[in-house]
Amino acid sequence: MTDTAVPPPLASFIEKAAALLGPRGLTTDPELVAPWLTDWRGRFTGRACALASPANVEEVSALVRLCADHGVPIVPQGGNSGMSGGATPDDSGTALLLSLRRMNAIRDIDTESGRATCEAGVILQTLHEAAEAQDFRFPLTLGGKGSATVGGLISTNAGGSQVLRHGSMRALVLGLEAVLADGQVFSQLTPLKKDNRGFDLKQLLIGSEGTLGIVTAATLRLLPAVAERMVIWAGVHSLPAARALLLHCDAMEGEALEGFEVMPQASIDAVVDHLPTARPPLEGRHAWHVLIEVVADRTGVDTLRDRCEAMMAEAFEKELVEDAALSASEAQAEAFWLIRETVPPAERARGPAVQHDISVPVESMPAFVETTAPMLEAEFPGTEAIAFGHLGDGNVHYHVIAPGASDASTWNATQGKAISRRVHDLVTQWGGSISAEHGIGQLKRDELARLGDPVALSMLRAVKQALDPRGLLNPGKLV
Amino acid sequence: MTDTAVPPPLASFIEKAAALLGPRGLTTDPELVAPWLTDWRGRFTGRACALASPANVEEVSALVRLCADHGVPIVPQGGNSGMSGGATPDDSGTALLLSLRRMNAIRDIDTESGRATCEAGVILQTLHEAAEAQDFRFPLTLGGKGSATVGGLISTNAGGSQVLRHGSMRALVLGLEAVLADGQVFSQLTPLKKDNRGFDLKQLLIGSEGTLGIVTAATLRLLPAVAERMVIWAGVHSLPAARALLLHCDAMEGEALEGFEVMPQASIDAVVDHLPTARPPLEGRHAWHVLIEVVADRTGVDTLRDRCEAMMAEAFEKELVEDAALSASEAQAEAFWLIRETVPPAERARGPAVQHDISVPVESMPAFVETTAPMLEAEFPGTEAIAFGHLGDGNVHYHVIAPGASDASTWNATQGKAISRRVHDLVTQWGGSISAEHGIGQLKRDELARLGDPVALSMLRAVKQALDPRGLLNPGKLV
Repeated sequence: MTDTAVPPPLASFIEKAAALLGPRGLTTDPELVAPWLTDWRGRFTGRACALASPANVEEVSALVRLCADHGVPIVPQGGNSGMSGGATPDDSGTALLLSLRRMNAIRDIDTESGRATCEAGVILQTLHEAAEAQDFRFPLTLGGKGSATVGGLISTNAGGSQVLRHGSMRALVLGLEAVLADGQVFSQLTPLKKDNRGFDLKQLLIGSEGTLGIVTAATLRLLPAVAERMVIWAGVHSLPAARALLLHCDAMEGEALEGFEVMPQASIDAVVDHLPTARPPLEGRHAWHVLIEVVADRTGVDTLRDRCEAMMAEAFEKELVEDAALSASEAQAEAFWLIRETVPPAERARGPAVQHDISVPVESMPAFVETTAPMLEAEFPGTEAIAFGHLGDGNVHYHVIAPGASDASTWNATQGKAISRRVHDLVTQWGGSISAEHGIGQLKRDELARLGDPVALSMLRAVKQALDPRGLLNPGKLV
Repeated sequence: MTDTAVPPPLASFIEKAAALLGPRGLTTDPELVAPWLTDWRGRFTGRACALASPANVEEVSALVRLCADHGVPIVPQGGNSGMSGGATPDDSGTALLLSLRRMNAIRDIDTESGRATCEAGVILQTLHEAAEAQDFRFPLTLGGKGSATVGGLISTNAGGSQVLRHGSMRALVLGLEAVLADGQVFSQLTPLKKDNRGFDLKQLLIGSEGTLGIVTAATLRLLPAVAERMVIWAGVHSLPAARALLLHCDAMEGEALEGFEVMPQASIDAVVDHLPTARPPLEGRHAWHVLIEVVADRTGVDTLRDRCEAMMAEAFEKELVEDAALSASEAQAEAFWLIRETVPPAERARGPAVQHDISVPVESMPAFVETTAPMLEAEFPGTEAIAFGHLGDGNVHYHVIAPGASDASTWNATQGKAISRRVHDLVTQWGGSISAEHGIGQLKRDELARLGDPVALSMLRAVKQALDPRGLLNPGKLV
């Protein structure tokens, strides 16, 4: 929230910023600023000297120069739906909150080359719809698609449920424009398929969480619209069986395999409690449920359904699955996905829990979950460890749920914190990452400092120091 | 070549390095060092205080520390077949030439996960053969595959003729190990499919030409062996027609399209002169010749030949091609590729010429060549401008051949240099790159400084300064 008594140098900065951006571009009105000072999970609340909403890259550049002149720290923000508090300022009230939401133009959809050029504030769902209207698709998708912006997705190298075939955001950014700490504009929007003029600066900015530069626009890869898709729901008896099924599907369908998600029976039960209209695709109970998506880029001689039926018939023969259902229509495919997408809110509704977005080498994930879940439940009596998500990427969301009558406010800060440290220790021992797809932000900064490889950390810090020597870009985040 | 009178601090360094690496690991014998002091194109020759050939990453690390202690610059070298003099020391004789060739173990081929872990000195062709023996393939390939090493390919982000579908080296590196300027080892060999602990340091090292760290090992992506391939040779009347054919093939075959190379008639004539056994696939003469490669990962119901015939029949109907031939056997497919691969030596045999490895946005390449070739031939009378190569990547090799009786030694240094500057100016005006796939090295460092985006250059320099503050890693290269 803004202060009533703003110290004079800050007052002079705000006056100049207001003159630069005009009334639509700058506000200090507490009512307008407040909604953006808390992250969407409600875990962090900060303060800001003002909320800036520049209209174009020239304004961002001039604003960043002004910030540099006055030593004002900048917290860039897209849809404010990040999972790690990366877009929330600290509580000093000295930082400027810089929203990119007003820069929301899709400048161009190039159907010949299959790419979209858009500003940082374009919302993911808007991009999906614009691509679909031209018979293309942007393959990355995630739960927060109605609020997440292109700039935020790039800054956090977002993942989601379609990474298996097309990769994270990093793999889909062809060109980038960003404003650096001194206000200079790095402009590489025009994609060159091959360019070896030194190491890739675009890749350096992707995933840097606004600490090296502020993404203002990007050119993104589009793919031809999918001609057909099938969603398969399977019940399996164990996580190693799910992994064996993944290898089987990969061997049979290869690049047509676009999604492979796992959920334990407990998560399906939680979904049914949370969303009474949800109907589980399988009648029986299974230790693990698997959602498989297979797509066809063009309608072939072999229909996709025939291929999927053949794939599952062989999986039955190999005793990889206990039961399976194929989506009979696009509506049913959507209904299968809805169950998967309801797992996170359903799990949150069960009561206090700590969540971890972790990865280990893909082939180690079944053993990791099977080894560590009973270990944690024994070490922290009454807790329940649940893993669900992107098995095909070696990335699960690993929740540890508090014992029945725990009070959220105290449990999270004490027991919850101890559990998170233990989970992160275990992940590190298994050669994994404490942040698979949500980034570090302020949530995991201390844990990264505690557990990160010292050599990698010193490289991250050296690059940060080189490109933002005064530490004005998103301070307190990442490193 | 090594000096007979080595100054005392250098003598002390060499003594310690010899003790560290043993007789197989260090030599100052001029006869053993000399072959590695000239780049393979013969454009640069330098001197070195010694040639080090460490056996493992621990030795590289200790050696780099020793160099740091004594202020000795290091020039890393793989197969010494780079195109830009990036692995050749300057002529001061103070640098240590650090060969990675002795570190040539393929540590592991993981057939379940489809990846190979190998040391920096593994030769590309050896990797191809090792992958093939396991029914896999490493898709990147290029003319120098018999000498190019994994470490060199990563350091230069090498491209080649199969980038269209699978990307440059950058897209194929899953994990990396490198020794940094202070001797610390950056170790991220175990690949995590998702890892968002900050920006991607691996990507920073790829393409950094040994200026930020010395690649010692890598984990690389392997693909299932190709089940079938077809190579098609087509004659077209213009470069825009070749581009239209590319779009047609892409629409019909999408990800099965792995290669799309163009050559002018003059290059085919040069090949026939140079390699009398070569038989052009088409009887007639065509302004441009196109080589198209289409592969099938598995043998389908529609055979690949049927699909390729249908694709070309439609291309004839649309009047995109004048004539075409499909390879009737694997031997003929190889013969078609041999013609393409003979273009560079055949062009070099025609006499003095300047070569440029350039890219522009893929869709602009036909217009770029059609506009600039006559312009250059008019500005530099008697010259002939020839472009051939990877049209699908927006990357051609652009040769300008000297007038008939020119003397190589004088023409290259005078007229040739002026032409190169002009070509680079034009490429820059068209939004392109003066180095598409060969890197900057020492060959293009001044041109990059002259024409590079000042913002990008200052970022490159800041990162270099941050990670190698004393400038000991491959000095005089890149930036």
